[in-house]
Amino acid sequence: MNKVYNFSAGPAILPREAMEAGSRACLEFNGMGLSLLEISHRSKEFEAVLNDARAIVKELLGVPDGYQVLFLQGGASLQFAMVPMNLLDEGETAAYLDTGVWANKALKEAKLFGNAKAVASSKEQNYTFIPKEYEVPADAKYFHVTSNNTIYGTQLQSFPASAVPLISDMSSDIFSRPVDVSKFGLIYAGSQKNMGIAGTTLVIIRDDLMGKAKRKLPSMLDYKLQAENDSMYNTPPVFAIYMALETLKWVKSKGGVSAMQKLNEEKAGRLYAEIDSNPLFKGTCAVEDRSRMNVTFVMNKPELEGAFLKEAEAAGLSGLKGHRSVGGFRASIYNAMGVDGIDALVSLMRDFSKRNS
Amino acid sequence: MNKVYNFSAGPAILPREAMEAGSRACLEFNGMGLSLLEISHRSKEFEAVLNDARAIVKELLGVPDGYQVLFLQGGASLQFAMVPMNLLDEGETAAYLDTGVWANKALKEAKLFGNAKAVASSKEQNYTFIPKEYEVPADAKYFHVTSNNTIYGTQLQSFPASAVPLISDMSSDIFSRPVDVSKFGLIYAGSQKNMGIAGTTLVIIRDDLMGKAKRKLPSMLDYKLQAENDSMYNTPPVFAIYMALETLKWVKSKGGVSAMQKLNEEKAGRLYAEIDSNPLFKGTCAVEDRSRMNVTFVMNKPELEGAFLKEAEAAGLSGLKGHRSVGGFRASIYNAMGVDGIDALVSLMRDFSKRNS
Repeated sequence: MNKVYNFSAGPAILPREAMEAGSRACLEFNGMGLSLLEISHRSKEFEAVLNDARAIVKELLGVPDGYQVLFLQGGASLQFAMVPMNLLDEGETAAYLDTGVWANKALKEAKLFGNAKAVASSKEQNYTFIPKEYEVPADAKYFHVTSNNTIYGTQLQSFPASAVPLISDMSSDIFSRPVDVSKFGLIYAGSQKNMGIAGTTLVIIRDDLMGKAKRKLPSMLDYKLQAENDSMYNTPPVFAIYMALETLKWVKSKGGVSAMQKLNEEKAGRLYAEIDSNPLFKGTCAVEDRSRMNVTFVMNKPELEGAFLKEAEAAGLSGLKGHRSVGGFRASIYNAMGVDGIDALVSLMRDFSKRNS
Repeated sequence: MNKVYNFSAGPAILPREAMEAGSRACLEFNGMGLSLLEISHRSKEFEAVLNDARAIVKELLGVPDGYQVLFLQGGASLQFAMVPMNLLDEGETAAYLDTGVWANKALKEAKLFGNAKAVASSKEQNYTFIPKEYEVPADAKYFHVTSNNTIYGTQLQSFPASAVPLISDMSSDIFSRPVDVSKFGLIYAGSQKNMGIAGTTLVIIRDDLMGKAKRKLPSMLDYKLQAENDSMYNTPPVFAIYMALETLKWVKSKGGVSAMQKLNEEKAGRLYAEIDSNPLFKGTCAVEDRSRMNVTFVMNKPELEGAFLKEAEAAGLSGLKGHRSVGGFRASIYNAMGVDGIDALVSLMRDFSKRNS
C-alpha cells in the first residue's frame, strides 16, 4: 500500500512510533503477560504511565510549580462547561474572545452559569481574522481565548496580556510551540489533534483557581476533586492517556516544542508560499493571523475544487476537504506531519495548476 | 511467556480476538492506509463503527423501539450526576437502593440536584447482601439500582418490579445475561468491565425520559442533545467505541448473552462450589445474592492470605487481591474469562489447602 498523508483536522495524524507502541501495548504491556487494555488502572504499571504522562507535559511546556496537570474526559466541549461551573458564580462576569464556532460554543456554555460575554468577535466576517482591539472588563473572573481556530485557519500569534486569569482552549495547537504557562490561569486541550487520540482532555490549572465556585459541583466536574485524586477519581481513559504519553515522548525525542515550532513554521511557510504564488489558489484569512496548524485555502476557479480533491485522494493526500463553513481546502499539518507531506501537496498544487491554467 | 489469567475487577479481561483487532487497527484500518487512531470521526469508516456498535448493543440486549443507545464519556461516575441532572428537578424525589460504595456515590450525586433518598441500605452490614424489603415512594421520579456490586460480590438475581422508571447501573454485569430492557427507563454502564476498555460509557435511555428537566443543562450532559447528535456532539472516544464493538462481536459469535449467562453460571458455580467445600476458604456475602461476575472470598486462616496471593501471582493468576473494604480475595470472572481460568484457580485453592491443612 502506498503511503497516505493524513491532513485530517482531528482525530489526526500521529507519529508512527506512537501508533506502533499502541499496537504492541494492545497485545502485551511491559512484560506483564497482559494487554494494556485489560490491566487495572490501579496497577503500578498504569500508575507509571499516568505519572510519566503528567511529567512529560510539565517538562515539555515548562509548567511551573503551583499548577495541576489533569487528564479528564469529555473533550474540550465538556471544558466549555466545566470552566464556568468551577470559576464563575451566578451574576459574575466572564470575558470571551469570539474567534470561531468553538470559541462561540464555549461562550454559550458559560452563559448557563454567569454573565459571560464576548469582548470582540469576528463572526460577521466568518471568523477570517482575530480581533485585536477590545477591552476586558476589570471585574471579569477570567478571559477566555481559543489559541487556534481549526475550522477557519486562524491562530493567536501571541497571547494577550490580561489582568484577569487568562484561560485558553489549545485543543488544536498545544505542543506545537512554546507557551509561557505562568501567564495562564487554565489551559485545556482535547487530545485528538496534537497530543494523541480522542478520549482524554488535558487540563493545566493554577492551584488558586480550584475550589472557588459557590455552586455544588458533581464530583466528576470538580477540578479540585480531580486534582486531589490525581485524575483517578474514577477509572481514567487508560489507552488514551498512554497514547498521549507516547505521542509526547516522540515530541521530546524530536527536540521538544521549540523544535516543533521550527518544523511547523517551515511546513506552514512552504504551503502558504505556494498558496500565495500559485495563481489557482488563495488563502481564506488574514495573513497576520494565519494558523501554522490548519492551512485553509480555496481556488480562484471553484469549479475545479472537486477535481483537485479527487486527484489529491488518488495521490494519497487524505482529509483535505475544507470545513463546510469555509469551503475549499484545509490542510491540517500537526506536529506529526513531516515536510515530505507538505512537499507532496505543494507538488500536486503546482502540477494541477499547470494542467488547468 | 506463560499464559496469565486476568482476574482484575476492571479494566478487565477482554477476548483475545478483540485485543488483536485493536492491535491491528492501531496500525491500519479497513484498507484505508491509515490507523483507526488517526482518522476523522466523521469518516464513513468510523461512522460505520459507531453504527455497528449501536446495532450490536440493540441486537444483543433486544433493545425495543423507543430507546436511544448512546456512547458517552466520563464513566458511570459521570452518569451518577447526569441521571439526576436530566431527570430530577429541585424538590422532586428519587429513590435509590444502597447496595455498595458505587450505589452510595450515585445517591450522593443525586442529592446535589433533588430529594434523593435510599429506600433501603445494607451499608451497616458492609453491603454483604441485597436488601429486599422496601417501598419506593409513589411520587419518585425514578428508582435507581446497581445490578452488580463489584467490590462486595453481590448481584441482583432479578430486577424489582417498579411503578416508577427503573434505572440501573450495570457497569459490571452488562452483557453477562439477558435483560428485559423494556422494564427499564435507563441503563448505563462504564465499558471497562464486560464490554471493552476504559473510555466510553453506554447509556440506553427511553425516549420519554429525555429533555425533561427544567434546569439548563451543559450540552455535553444533555441526553437529548447527545441522542439528536447520534453520540457525535463532539469527537467521541473512537478507539474505545471500536473496542466495545469488537468485544460485543465476540459475545455474539459465542452465542450472545444467553450463552454468556450459561457460561458465567458454570464458571461461578465451579468457584463457589470450591469455596463452600474447601475448609480453608469461605464466601463473604449472602449466598442468594452472590455475584456471577465478582466472586469474593476470604480464608479461615487469614494469616495465610498473603502466601496464597503470592502463589497465585507466581502461577499466573493475576488480580485476585480483594478490595480493601472486604479483604481476602476477589475473582472477577467476566465474560471473557474461560472455564480454564476457573479450573486453574480452583486447582491452586485445593493444592494450597492440602499443603496448609
